[in-house]
Amino acid sequence: MNHIDRANQEAFERINAAEPELVDVVYAKDVLPGMDKRTIGHAGPPLEWKDMCGPLKGAILGAAVYEGMAETLEEAEKMVLAGEIKFVSNHSMGCVGPMTGMITYSMPLWKVVNAKYGNVAYSTFNEGLGKVMRFGANGPEVLERLKWMETVLAPAMKAALAETGPISLKVMITKALAMGDEMHQRNIAASALFVREVAPALAKVVENRADLERVMSFISGNDQFFLNLAMAAGKSTMDPVKNIEHCSVVTAMSRNGTNFGIKVSALGDQWFEAPVLTPKGLYFPGYSEKDANPDIGDSAICETFGIGGFAMGSSPAVVRFVGASSVQEAINYSRDMQEITVGLNQTYIMPTMDFIGTATGIDIRKVVETGILPVINTGMAHKQPGVGQVGAGIVNAPMDCFVKALYAFADYEGV
Amino acid sequence: MNHIDRANQEAFERINAAEPELVDVVYAKDVLPGMDKRTIGHAGPPLEWKDMCGPLKGAILGAAVYEGMAETLEEAEKMVLAGEIKFVSNHSMGCVGPMTGMITYSMPLWKVVNAKYGNVAYSTFNEGLGKVMRFGANGPEVLERLKWMETVLAPAMKAALAETGPISLKVMITKALAMGDEMHQRNIAASALFVREVAPALAKVVENRADLERVMSFISGNDQFFLNLAMAAGKSTMDPVKNIEHCSVVTAMSRNGTNFGIKVSALGDQWFEAPVLTPKGLYFPGYSEKDANPDIGDSAICETFGIGGFAMGSSPAVVRFVGASSVQEAINYSRDMQEITVGLNQTYIMPTMDFIGTATGIDIRKVVETGILPVINTGMAHKQPGVGQVGAGIVNAPMDCFVKALYAFADYEGV
Repeated sequence: MNHIDRANQEAFERINAAEPELVDVVYAKDVLPGMDKRTIGHAGPPLEWKDMCGPLKGAILGAAVYEGMAETLEEAEKMVLAGEIKFVSNHSMGCVGPMTGMITYSMPLWKVVNAKYGNVAYSTFNEGLGKVMRFGANGPEVLERLKWMETVLAPAMKAALAETGPISLKVMITKALAMGDEMHQRNIAASALFVREVAPALAKVVENRADLERVMSFISGNDQFFLNLAMAAGKSTMDPVKNIEHCSVVTAMSRNGTNFGIKVSALGDQWFEAPVLTPKGLYFPGYSEKDANPDIGDSAICETFGIGGFAMGSSPAVVRFVGASSVQEAINYSRDMQEITVGLNQTYIMPTMDFIGTATGIDIRKVVETGILPVINTGMAHKQPGVGQVGAGIVNAPMDCFVKALYAFADYEGV
Repeated sequence: MNHIDRANQEAFERINAAEPELVDVVYAKDVLPGMDKRTIGHAGPPLEWKDMCGPLKGAILGAAVYEGMAETLEEAEKMVLAGEIKFVSNHSMGCVGPMTGMITYSMPLWKVVNAKYGNVAYSTFNEGLGKVMRFGANGPEVLERLKWMETVLAPAMKAALAETGPISLKVMITKALAMGDEMHQRNIAASALFVREVAPALAKVVENRADLERVMSFISGNDQFFLNLAMAAGKSTMDPVKNIEHCSVVTAMSRNGTNFGIKVSALGDQWFEAPVLTPKGLYFPGYSEKDANPDIGDSAICETFGIGGFAMGSSPAVVRFVGASSVQEAINYSRDMQEITVGLNQTYIMPTMDFIGTATGIDIRKVVETGILPVINTGMAHKQPGVGQVGAGIVNAPMDCFVKALYAFADYEGV
């Protein structure tokens, strides 16, 4: 084992040792460095307005109205063009958000602590499916829902978590893998387990009866509710893997709808970017390939720590949602990922694949050597602003990210 | 296709056409024919006190105290010996209950309607695991829990169901099969889905805050809560399959801890019985094979309509609970059951097995011809009264039931 392999082994052990726990609900304004009333966090590496895709622009304009920066979408666009709104990459604030990943001043965030290393990660709350801001929708019903989440749902959840104490996301993810979730495009089991976990506490702490009923309905009616918690678990798991000397393991993968970026342990917080690909998958009625925006979102943090597409073999039912051809193809994806990773996860096991662990710890050297690209299960947004989700599918991380990162890593190693 | 095959095809179509829906909570005293304050319903074919196993006796004595027939277990036993308590087979009252299957006058029941055929089936409420009456336990905490279920949980559920309207158990079972439940020894997904379904309504209708909290805790904390609903779905699915002329399909399988009984469509309500076998499986800490009571309960209605052991291939995670050697063994069980059944279920599909339906409609001719016995996933009770559950395992229906039934069927056919 050479010094790089040893460093990667250390990374692998830190991933396995992670203990992501949901501990609290907080607000962006109170915890995020540099967050102010004119700042909007977004998914993926940083980019400028002119380079942004339709759904990201749509979400940003909606977020500006939600936050009260502007009264209308048109006014918001003028402010953007006048340089009056600042954009920040979520990852740089310790946050993750799916798809467009909007985070503004007033938004509530899940606070997840990695109890093994003490680091903290945040994620947004999941809004549900269809016409939602993370897919670029920005109409009045989208903003009303976000305001309700901020003012009713979040305080209810905060009070409930004070009642339950820390909730182990590691345990919940492990259980849900045994229940056919891969936790990126299929979260029905984890979401239902989460409801069971918090329902008694919510019943105890939410004073207003109508509020309690809407909270129960909202969290019970969203099969993807857990996605954002899985993402925060991933972020909190991968952050302690950063900056290990000589380590060629990927610590983050994320997309802003224009570019796909990865970070590599030894190379710190530098993004290595390439143009994103467009998922292949299945479309909701009325939509087709010509409507789909290219790949977007921080949610590829799931695959970064070994679930999502990497756990597809544990999720036979996701096959028909993302458009894989068969259960065997899903199993093959999970097997292929073993070729580009350090090892098999010790906790995240797949009963469907005779209880082996998911492939964990992407090694950029192996990706470039084998030509096997990380596989990601993902949602698909309409490419026009304001529409929303049009389907779900499978996409790869682009090879150029890994090639660029490997050149930089070779430089770093003095090769 | 001869006339028996045609009759069996009709049975298969009725099973597939069934639409079991949970519609209400009722009380045994209000709906069960012949139920009075000195009657106790039990699982399996009828039998006398002297032939009953330990856990069934333990449960009966506890049930008598719960119902106020006696003040103590000792007094209850004297009443039994004096012939003052009447025993009835649950199936004869249109009911099912897992393990000992106790049903008394005051107990609440789930009411399930088969919306396709209009027939009704009832089942008891699930008490949880461990020291519970269905496993033969009868201490004060067992009786207190049953009283709370009768006076708080049941009215809450009744009110919630009035709010939700009928809940399709067919849909819920189908979803849960895609989430790794086989719905006999693994019901975590179905139970969690059920919580999601009723939580908003409970939040709306349960006035007392402490009651609401305990109800939420109870239903959220029991991974087997859905079992009894799956059983009532099975009973309501299979009852319309009874009395089809020339039909050799099994309409009920059940065990009283001493004998295993089956019913066959063309032969009406006659039980064909043989001594029960003892499950092979895994034991909770502190228990071993010498503690296990032989097979007991109405829950084999699950396998009768195509889930439970027949769906083991859809439930990789149950393998390690019931003690199968591998996921492949579970898949083999589900494949073997195809040899003794009429066809593959059109709704209850197994994503893990490339979305094929579960083997459905046990044909007694095929069982005797092939020598392949129906496989049942089951809980194991301690053989002494008053103890409770000691483990879970796999058991077969005994061949003699099928041989006896086939002789009677040959007689009936005039062969």
